[in-house]
Amino acid sequence: MQHSIATVSLSGTLPEKLEAIAAAGFDGVEIFENDLLYFEGSPRDAKRLCDDLGLKIMLFQPFRDFEGGRRDKLQHNLDRAERKFDLMQELGTDRILVCSSVQPDVIRDDAVIADDLHQLAERAAKRGILVGYEALAWGRYVNSYRHVWDIVKAVDHPNLGIILDSFHTLSIKDDLSRLSEIPGDKIVFLQMADAPVLAMDVMEWSRHFRCFPGQGEFDLPAFLAPILQSGYHGPLSLEIFNDGFRAAPTRITAADGLRSLLYLEETTRQALQASSANLENAKSAEALFAPPAPSRFDGVEFLEFAVDDDAARRLATWFQKLGFAHAARHKSKNVDLYRHGSVNLILNAEPDSFAHAFFVAHGPSLCAAAFRVDDSRAALERAKLYRARPFESRVGPNERQIPAVRAPDGSLQYLVDKGLDGRSIYDSDFDPLPGGVAAAARTTLSAIDHFALGLPAETLDTWSLYFRAVYGFEAEHEWVLPDPYGLVKSRVLRSADRTIRIPLNISENRNTAIARSVSTYRGSGLQHVAFAADDIFAAVAAAREAGLPLLEIPRNYYDDLAARFDLEPAFIARIAAANVLYDRDPDGGELLHVYTEPFEERFFFEIIERRGGYQQYGAANVAVRLAALAQTRARAGQRGASWAD
Amino acid sequence: MQHSIATVSLSGTLPEKLEAIAAAGFDGVEIFENDLLYFEGSPRDAKRLCDDLGLKIMLFQPFRDFEGGRRDKLQHNLDRAERKFDLMQELGTDRILVCSSVQPDVIRDDAVIADDLHQLAERAAKRGILVGYEALAWGRYVNSYRHVWDIVKAVDHPNLGIILDSFHTLSIKDDLSRLSEIPGDKIVFLQMADAPVLAMDVMEWSRHFRCFPGQGEFDLPAFLAPILQSGYHGPLSLEIFNDGFRAAPTRITAADGLRSLLYLEETTRQALQASSANLENAKSAEALFAPPAPSRFDGVEFLEFAVDDDAARRLATWFQKLGFAHAARHKSKNVDLYRHGSVNLILNAEPDSFAHAFFVAHGPSLCAAAFRVDDSRAALERAKLYRARPFESRVGPNERQIPAVRAPDGSLQYLVDKGLDGRSIYDSDFDPLPGGVAAAARTTLSAIDHFALGLPAETLDTWSLYFRAVYGFEAEHEWVLPDPYGLVKSRVLRSADRTIRIPLNISENRNTAIARSVSTYRGSGLQHVAFAADDIFAAVAAAREAGLPLLEIPRNYYDDLAARFDLEPAFIARIAAANVLYDRDPDGGELLHVYTEPFEERFFFEIIERRGGYQQYGAANVAVRLAALAQTRARAGQRGASWAD
Repeated sequence: MQHSIATVSLSGTLPEKLEAIAAAGFDGVEIFENDLLYFEGSPRDAKRLCDDLGLKIMLFQPFRDFEGGRRDKLQHNLDRAERKFDLMQELGTDRILVCSSVQPDVIRDDAVIADDLHQLAERAAKRGILVGYEALAWGRYVNSYRHVWDIVKAVDHPNLGIILDSFHTLSIKDDLSRLSEIPGDKIVFLQMADAPVLAMDVMEWSRHFRCFPGQGEFDLPAFLAPILQSGYHGPLSLEIFNDGFRAAPTRITAADGLRSLLYLEETTRQALQASSANLENAKSAEALFAPPAPSRFDGVEFLEFAVDDDAARRLATWFQKLGFAHAARHKSKNVDLYRHGSVNLILNAEPDSFAHAFFVAHGPSLCAAAFRVDDSRAALERAKLYRARPFESRVGPNERQIPAVRAPDGSLQYLVDKGLDGRSIYDSDFDPLPGGVAAAARTTLSAIDHFALGLPAETLDTWSLYFRAVYGFEAEHEWVLPDPYGLVKSRVLRSADRTIRIPLNISENRNTAIARSVSTYRGSGLQHVAFAADDIFAAVAAAREAGLPLLEIPRNYYDDLAARFDLEPAFIARIAAANVLYDRDPDGGELLHVYTEPFEERFFFEIIERRGGYQQYGAANVAVRLAALAQTRARAGQRGASWAD
Repeated sequence: MQHSIATVSLSGTLPEKLEAIAAAGFDGVEIFENDLLYFEGSPRDAKRLCDDLGLKIMLFQPFRDFEGGRRDKLQHNLDRAERKFDLMQELGTDRILVCSSVQPDVIRDDAVIADDLHQLAERAAKRGILVGYEALAWGRYVNSYRHVWDIVKAVDHPNLGIILDSFHTLSIKDDLSRLSEIPGDKIVFLQMADAPVLAMDVMEWSRHFRCFPGQGEFDLPAFLAPILQSGYHGPLSLEIFNDGFRAAPTRITAADGLRSLLYLEETTRQALQASSANLENAKSAEALFAPPAPSRFDGVEFLEFAVDDDAARRLATWFQKLGFAHAARHKSKNVDLYRHGSVNLILNAEPDSFAHAFFVAHGPSLCAAAFRVDDSRAALERAKLYRARPFESRVGPNERQIPAVRAPDGSLQYLVDKGLDGRSIYDSDFDPLPGGVAAAARTTLSAIDHFALGLPAETLDTWSLYFRAVYGFEAEHEWVLPDPYGLVKSRVLRSADRTIRIPLNISENRNTAIARSVSTYRGSGLQHVAFAADDIFAAVAAAREAGLPLLEIPRNYYDDLAARFDLEPAFIARIAAANVLYDRDPDGGELLHVYTEPFEERFFFEIIERRGGYQQYGAANVAVRLAALAQTRARAGQRGASWAD
């Protein structure tokens, strides 16, 4: 299908926006009038710019408060429209969006409104223009697509049709059943927007919190599928009002926009197939984006840290205290494998490598994660079709090239499968060290349960969409958590089978632990790695014996735990003695977990035991961890600079 | 009255919070349980900390979901309460807040709830504890103070009373008429919070957007006055959940909190006097804070810029192009007066002065503003009582010490009156320059209409409260305006007679013009000065002749203006030729204004003509100015660094 985006969705001046839109691969744009208003060139200049960039101007918008106004204003309103038609001719576009009136004194009479729109359509016909009438969710009288459609049908003019916008329909939880009765050729334009589910005034919600499909929580395939079935084959367009987008880098937002439309196409195709709907009319359904299906994942194969020799020694000490053995050394590079049971951590200190560049930019940090997939070639193909940038590393003779892509922050994600020869990547690329395997055989940790990233606040939507589109991950509902110095938002992206879970954490303020982490890394970075244990007490005992610095939990936490849950005093005493935190979900699932102190103020480790199907992350305990950390810092006299300093 | 604040209102660890609360001058605190939970000491340690700081622990809170629960849980809930009573005894506090249940299965029966609360009160009585029952606005069954009061009356137990919270009452626009029937001694505690008026879910509103009295839009005196009349003489306490406060410097927030309670006392006293209410019972009304009344203002006497000799020359050039003459030189300092009619601008390049320190820290910038008042001594006294920091400058022989205070960013605000001798401050401190007065006599500008400040986002509440409390200014409703690289919020603080108007502008994002300005100044700073003109065209003609660089407005703006308003083509041609922007208010008042280009990317000037009682600031045109500026910058290839760089 053709892809379009409204200029209002991006930051910057009109030329900056158009260049980014073309670079992302869109076919066309909706010109939002204000962007033109503040453009220093003429409308003809704007058209020339679009022509040069290969962009079609698909729509001009919005034209407000036209229909059902005071009768003595009708002539003025029609004149006003003629001026906009002039402007459209200069722009070379033939479609205009007329949104339903928000005037308090709008005439609440369909016949009057139909008559006004008829007059407008007559004038449009003389200019070869198509008028699209759209319901604003907060329109004073007309506020649903159903009402618009009734009026458009009544006017029955070839130059008047309907414009559908997913936000205005889904935000008011409107009945979708009549979408399929609108013939495709009466749909002048189709705007797609997602949004997080928020309990707030719909206009404010619309104007500040819309997001790209796949970044929010709306069921967009349920909206789009019947429209495609009714024969619509025009463009899919994005019209997003979002405070974050207004401040985000233009090109990145535009690239996200295109990816979101591909994702919308794929998920809508799946919905159409699942419903075994009659696809005869949905010609455009055939044209929907169809990448290879998402991989079946089987956990995190390894995490790789960028280090130099010195940082490698420091971090290796931590790994060893966590029970990891130095298991192997890379055949041709300054790279070491640490292993505990089937859990792998890699330290990469190779000069002139990708990891080295990462180390120089960010210090000791997570530079790559490897996911176990069933078919790495198909996984890479899917990622590339979703515009992820592939990465090929320098390999030595007989070493394996592992398929990889760059995540939004430039770190790598490897896609590892069993391969045709059944040998592991370590067999081909590493020399085992004597004793390493034996030492790592006494296992208390069974897997990487999850690893959390701290992100710059404005990148959360980019990351969410990336994981959903590129890997078919699912996004869990967002949590807001208190930090002693601000609020932190957390959203988990995970594979369908939950073998890979990646909490993404952001902070709007700059004094929180997350903000500090983002600042430390100069970008996004690892916040913590959580290892799964079958027996948390055994794991803690082993870790303590090895000298792992566990975070001390205030006694008051356990007193309160006793008041909150019916727990045996002996059990509370046991977890308190081990600094183990506790959480329980409504179904009785339980979480027991411990945190380490941070490694050089960068990241920390967690050991967790899930009992009885507990699927969360102990969010209730995050505050006590942050407070304990803050106290550690306060003791050390560290605190973020304040604006009053 | 006594002043208290809930620990949840501030950022930081418990010790940091308590120290800031004591330093601000509060008498006591509400201990919010989570703060204790994350405190590494025991409750006894927390009490000792408070004792050492001279703070009384006035309340322990919250105790949730107690009443009307499942019958088989009642014993557990009572046990839970006993544990909290233990904790309260260690803390040495005798009051606990029980908030109404939010459980979906709460028993909707007043008799059951009353019985539960009776049992709780009986247990509390044995421990010498007072239970305060409070309605959450989103309580599942009990959600208004009126319902709480009915139940508390029915229980009729000496150890059970009501807790009132202004947010929970005003947010649901509850009927206030029954507040006066609650005897003062049945009010266990009184919590005061303000909030901006927002159309959103009340719980979200409450948890993220509360603010201190005087920072929001609630009519708090209408809430507090009847409570005082009913004989309440306990403390006024602040319980503020606010995302900004969670991230703001603890001590500044605490100081704002105390100032806000003083302001609440003053405005409530005024409300009581205005209502000529029966004050017999309102003993505490006598104790309400009573500073000297706000000044009568008469405009801005001068604006003073911190410069060095070089910056003085550059800025003087701009002043001269604006029509200002070099009118006088300070008798003992490197300070110059520029004058246009009755408008005064001062350049201060004196070494070792306050202005010099300001220049070193912020570059060429606004370091002081002088307000004309009727009685500068009373104005200073009021400011000091509101905890503003007075400032005394070094004066030479026979020079006048002008009363001054420091604004929240450390800049000065002078309070200038006619003085007893009738001589102006310039007569006593300056030597007039020959020709200066004559040159400045050809006036096109009549006054400083307003001057706008760009602030770090988290300081807006501090500044709003400062102007309202210290000067009795009024706060206008907040505007949100688009910038090409983000959104900008603007709130005007002004004197009652509008002779002083100060728009305060903030940006949450870091790429907007405001954010750039804040970054340039390393703090808050002048964004622009708007001069009033009686004839904008004459003023523009004079400015052009003098070579003042006016901002060029895109032609498309004027085309759209013609579509929006019924304006004569000749008029539009005239304003377009002069780069004059236009706005009209619903009552027909008109604004005509021009902008200059920015002075060294720091601030700019505006010339405005108000017609027909127009009282706004041309917000509709801010976007075109910002876009025009952004285009100027884009042409110059400047753009904020992005996170993806």
